[in-house]
Amino acid sequence: MRGVVMQAAGDVRVEEREDPILEEPTDAIIRLTASCICGSDLWPYRGIEAAEHQVMGHEYVGVVEQIGAEVETIKVGDFVVGSFFASDNTCEICQAGYQSRCVHAVLMGAAIGTQSELARVPLADGTLVATPGQPDPELVPSLLAASDVLGTGWFGAVAAEAGPGKTAVVVGHGAVGLMAVLAAKQLGAERIIAMSRHADRQELARFYGATDIVEERGDDGVANIKELTGGLGAHSVVEAVGTQESMMQAIRSARPGGHVGYVGVTHDVTLPADELFFSGVHLHGGPAPVRRFLPELIQLIWERKIDPGKVFDLTLPLDRAAEGYKAMDERRAVKVLLTV
Amino acid sequence: MRGVVMQAAGDVRVEEREDPILEEPTDAIIRLTASCICGSDLWPYRGIEAAEHQVMGHEYVGVVEQIGAEVETIKVGDFVVGSFFASDNTCEICQAGYQSRCVHAVLMGAAIGTQSELARVPLADGTLVATPGQPDPELVPSLLAASDVLGTGWFGAVAAEAGPGKTAVVVGHGAVGLMAVLAAKQLGAERIIAMSRHADRQELARFYGATDIVEERGDDGVANIKELTGGLGAHSVVEAVGTQESMMQAIRSARPGGHVGYVGVTHDVTLPADELFFSGVHLHGGPAPVRRFLPELIQLIWERKIDPGKVFDLTLPLDRAAEGYKAMDERRAVKVLLTV
Repeated sequence: MRGVVMQAAGDVRVEEREDPILEEPTDAIIRLTASCICGSDLWPYRGIEAAEHQVMGHEYVGVVEQIGAEVETIKVGDFVVGSFFASDNTCEICQAGYQSRCVHAVLMGAAIGTQSELARVPLADGTLVATPGQPDPELVPSLLAASDVLGTGWFGAVAAEAGPGKTAVVVGHGAVGLMAVLAAKQLGAERIIAMSRHADRQELARFYGATDIVEERGDDGVANIKELTGGLGAHSVVEAVGTQESMMQAIRSARPGGHVGYVGVTHDVTLPADELFFSGVHLHGGPAPVRRFLPELIQLIWERKIDPGKVFDLTLPLDRAAEGYKAMDERRAVKVLLTV
Repeated sequence: MRGVVMQAAGDVRVEEREDPILEEPTDAIIRLTASCICGSDLWPYRGIEAAEHQVMGHEYVGVVEQIGAEVETIKVGDFVVGSFFASDNTCEICQAGYQSRCVHAVLMGAAIGTQSELARVPLADGTLVATPGQPDPELVPSLLAASDVLGTGWFGAVAAEAGPGKTAVVVGHGAVGLMAVLAAKQLGAERIIAMSRHADRQELARFYGATDIVEERGDDGVANIKELTGGLGAHSVVEAVGTQESMMQAIRSARPGGHVGYVGVTHDVTLPADELFFSGVHLHGGPAPVRRFLPELIQLIWERKIDPGKVFDLTLPLDRAAEGYKAMDERRAVKVLLTV
């Protein structure tokens, strides 16, 4: 089969890889309908994380082609969505809703690489969620978004406890930030402030439910948020970047007792505990337990109540993956869908 | 009136101070029945925080002697308990339960100093809670504990979401840590692990409800907690120290999705966000909004359902306050009550 391999930073190729086989009786093999490129794939692309002959991709939707002997709930022919962590969905941690930290978790990116024609999905019963039927092609981008960016933005908004009567702020206007705007709206937030200085992202943010835009960053951005919230700060803040500046901007934008949900993968960020202590905020985040939300998200997409697929602004066939990486690296695309 | 003044680090004196007067129509003047010395009073005592002719004390119970013209719910003669922050209890932040960050908050320690015969309490209606009647003398220590250490330990346990079916860990065996053990038990935690290496503190922790003791600190302590919790870590962890080591010990003792409530005042602590991100814990803490819990805590004390007063292991008259500071500094006393 063909699949994306990052030979080294900046060097993305589509190569012939061996077809995956069932290795465990709990595995399934899926034929990908679509995959995509994640903002986090840019870390190795830019040389910030190591990459050497690394298979790539951890977002996936497709049709089940084979199942292992112990797979019970997923059937051959099902159209399925999974997340970037395979999980058993039965351990105590999964049952508490933290499937990304399942005691048997398998990271799909490093181990499997789903920018490919086929993929082995470990712990298929726990990992995959079947759609109610074969989806209309127009739903595929949205279902693919559920696999990571929607699930991650949703977790950010849940961690930030966005909800009725509340003001939510979203720091970060990448795909995850935009999905956090969508989530905050679905969760009923009264006011949603997107922090973005780019016109096209602002437009998407408004499409997904942003009621206000703040263009300033850092201290100025915080001052602006305070001004918009009667001097108090927001109830809920989603951090979807992962830098020192964005984390502090998020924490300082929240009111005492408010909630910060942080889902941007942090790199060399340190938090001053003394400031955090007196801020009185709730802080929660990490790799999103997307599996927790998949049944609900699939249902919302199926009923056409949300349209997360619009976050993909460039579609390419798998063979042209390298162009997709380049476009995202150069910020010419928010998020690239790869058809398989 | 007489009152404690810290002339400089280590130099505590009881001096004649001017009697407080009603400065605002929302003030009350109370005659102290008892006050006490807080672990945080040791920071200036040890020269870690600046102190120069500083009035001391922020815990207090007593009888209302005068009220301002706008005070409506508190009456002269009431026996009252307040917290270390005066608060209006009506602003949006107070109504959300964060009275320690009230938009009109007044810090009682620096501004008022309640290790004294009399004290002015700002925002009396919002700050003070009257007991159902004049208390039996044996209840006074417990009511005084509610003013800070009980309320703070309670907030730590609430922030850590201690509750039925859960395992709670308490890092720190000072008065606040011991009160967090009491709170975790009242909140219904199934198992309560106190981290302490001192026999007398262990005994008090067991009295207040600890089911297990872990003597190790740091990585060894964390390993021990993991072993006691099936390798997962605790659901709820209260941090009641405030050092770099204790914060990391608390975060690492919690399971993914678990809750860390931190109430030890941090000094020069930094949190590695990358580790925090992948830990998947909830982090919440800060200066405890004691006022939120006072009505419930007073009721529990009044009905003799809890006995937080036992945390005071040395009682001295106000005039001998200096001896009390010395005893706490030398760890000969957990907490010192000052009779007035």
